[in-house]
Amino acid sequence: MSRIAYVNGQYVPHRNAAVHVEDRGYQFADGVYEVFAVMGGKLIGEQGHFERLTHSLSELRIEWPLSRAAMLVAVKEIVRRNYVQDGLVYLQVTRGVSPRDHPFPEHSESALVITARKSGPLDKDALRNGVDVITIPDIRWQRCDIKSVALLPNVLGKQMARDANAFEAWQVDDEGYVTEGTSTNAWIVTANGDLVTRNASTSILNGVTRLAVLEAAAEAGIDITERPFTPKEALAAREAFITSSTSHVKAVTRINGQSIGNGHVGGLTNRVLDAYVEYLETHGGPRTTDTWN
Amino acid sequence: MSRIAYVNGQYVPHRNAAVHVEDRGYQFADGVYEVFAVMGGKLIGEQGHFERLTHSLSELRIEWPLSRAAMLVAVKEIVRRNYVQDGLVYLQVTRGVSPRDHPFPEHSESALVITARKSGPLDKDALRNGVDVITIPDIRWQRCDIKSVALLPNVLGKQMARDANAFEAWQVDDEGYVTEGTSTNAWIVTANGDLVTRNASTSILNGVTRLAVLEAAAEAGIDITERPFTPKEALAAREAFITSSTSHVKAVTRINGQSIGNGHVGGLTNRVLDAYVEYLETHGGPRTTDTWN
Repeated sequence: MSRIAYVNGQYVPHRNAAVHVEDRGYQFADGVYEVFAVMGGKLIGEQGHFERLTHSLSELRIEWPLSRAAMLVAVKEIVRRNYVQDGLVYLQVTRGVSPRDHPFPEHSESALVITARKSGPLDKDALRNGVDVITIPDIRWQRCDIKSVALLPNVLGKQMARDANAFEAWQVDDEGYVTEGTSTNAWIVTANGDLVTRNASTSILNGVTRLAVLEAAAEAGIDITERPFTPKEALAAREAFITSSTSHVKAVTRINGQSIGNGHVGGLTNRVLDAYVEYLETHGGPRTTDTWN
Repeated sequence: MSRIAYVNGQYVPHRNAAVHVEDRGYQFADGVYEVFAVMGGKLIGEQGHFERLTHSLSELRIEWPLSRAAMLVAVKEIVRRNYVQDGLVYLQVTRGVSPRDHPFPEHSESALVITARKSGPLDKDALRNGVDVITIPDIRWQRCDIKSVALLPNVLGKQMARDANAFEAWQVDDEGYVTEGTSTNAWIVTANGDLVTRNASTSILNGVTRLAVLEAAAEAGIDITERPFTPKEALAAREAFITSSTSHVKAVTRINGQSIGNGHVGGLTNRVLDAYVEYLETHGGPRTTDTWN
C-alpha cells in the first residue's frame, strides 16, 4: 500500500510529493508546522494544534491556505487514506512560491503539505524505560513560541544528543535556565518533590502534550509549578521526563551521564503518564483555547 | 526563452524545478546557500563564495553534493543556459531527503539546486541614490556566520523595513550594537571621519562583498576600522552604506527617518564604490582565502 500525501489541493503518492524550489519554506524557512499524534484512529489534540497553528500563522502574517474546517477535512482524509491507526500526521504551511526576495511577496498563495506515518500504539512500558538527556547552550532565535520550520538549531542540538548517545538535549539559556528539549518540553520533580516545567513564553514552544499534561495533572490532583529551572536543579531532581506529541510522557533517567533519582522511572512520572493517557481517552487532548492569544 | 534550473544533476525548466517535501531544507531549514553576482557574463567573487560555502557545510557537517570543481561547472552552465550577462546565481545545498526526524540521517544524499536570474548591469547612479534604513532588535540565533536557509528572522526584519517604507533594517544586538542588515552588511563613516563596519564573528554573515570592499579600500589607501557601532553612532554619522552581492555598495541617506550627513551620498562612500568596481574589474572578487578557517 503506497503512502499518500496532500500537496496544495492534491492527494499524491508520497514519493511524488514535491514543492517548487522557490517555495519560501525551502529558501527562507518561511513556514510553520504541526505534528498530530493519531491513537486508535483518532486525531489527538486537534483543537490545541489548530489553536497553536493560528498563533504561528498570525505572528508571521501568513494567510491560511484553507479554512480551518477544510484543513481538518484534509488531515482526516490523510489519516484515512494512509490507514493510520497509530502514528502521526505532519502538516506544514508556508508563505508559498514567489521569486526569491526577503520581504513578504505581494502575490503568493500559502502552500499546504500534509503527510502521515504509521507507528506502534502508545507503549507505556517503553515510555517508562528511561532515556538519557544532555544539556547544551540554547542558541536559538528569540521567538521559539512560533512553531516555524527554521529548525536548524534544533537539528544541531538533537545531533549533539545523538553524538553523546543521548535521546534529547535540554537547551540552557544565557541566564543559565533550561528552556526545553530540541523537540520536547522538559519536566523535573525537584529534590523536595515539586513537579516543575518551564512557564510558557517566547523562549519555549508551548507543547500541545505539555498542555494536556498540565490539565491531566490538575484533574488528577497533582500540583505543577511553571517556572524556569537550572541544570543543577535537574541533576539534583528525584525524577525527570519529557513530553511531545510523539514522545508522549517519556521518563528521563540520566542527565549528562548522571543518574536521576534511583535511575529508574519515578513514581510521580508514572502517575503523570497514567493521568495523561486517561485524559486523552476522555478528552482527546487539551481543552485550553486561549493559551496562544 | 524559458529559464533553466539545475536540480540534483538535471537541467530542468525553472517552472518544473521541484524538491521532495521531505527534503530537509523544506522541513528543517537544514541547508545553506550562496548568491553570486554575475557582471558582464563573469561570475563575481567565485573564490570567496566557495570558501564560505566550505565553512557553512563544514560547520553543519553537510557533505558536498558534488566536488567544488563540478559545482562550479554547474554554476557556469546555469549562467550560460540562462544567457545571464548581468544578474545573479542562487545556489542551495541541503542535507537531502529523508523521513522526517531531527538528527542527521544516516543515509541521505545532499541536494543541490542552482537557479539564475537576470538583472540590469551595475548602475552607479542608482547605487548613489540613497536608501532608508531602520533599526530593529536582532532576534536571530547565535551562529549567523553560517549562511543557512533558516532566514525567517531576516524575512521578518526585512518586512519591518518595508512596512516602514525603508529598504533595509539594521539589527541591534542585546548589547546595543548594530550587527548587520537582514541581507546586507552595515557601514558608517563616523562623525570624525572613520570608516567603520562590524568585525567578523558568529554575530554576522561575513559578506563576500564586505570582503571585496575591505580589500578594495585597502588598495585605494582608505582606512577601515572593524568594530561594533551603536545606532546612536550611526545616527551621528557623516555617511552610511550597505554592501551585498546584489546591492553592491549602496548609499544609506536616512536612518530611522533622520538624514545622515547632508542627506545625499557621501564623498567617502563614492570613493569606496569606485574602488570596489575597479577592484572587481581587476580581481573579480576578494582574494582572501582564510577568512572562514
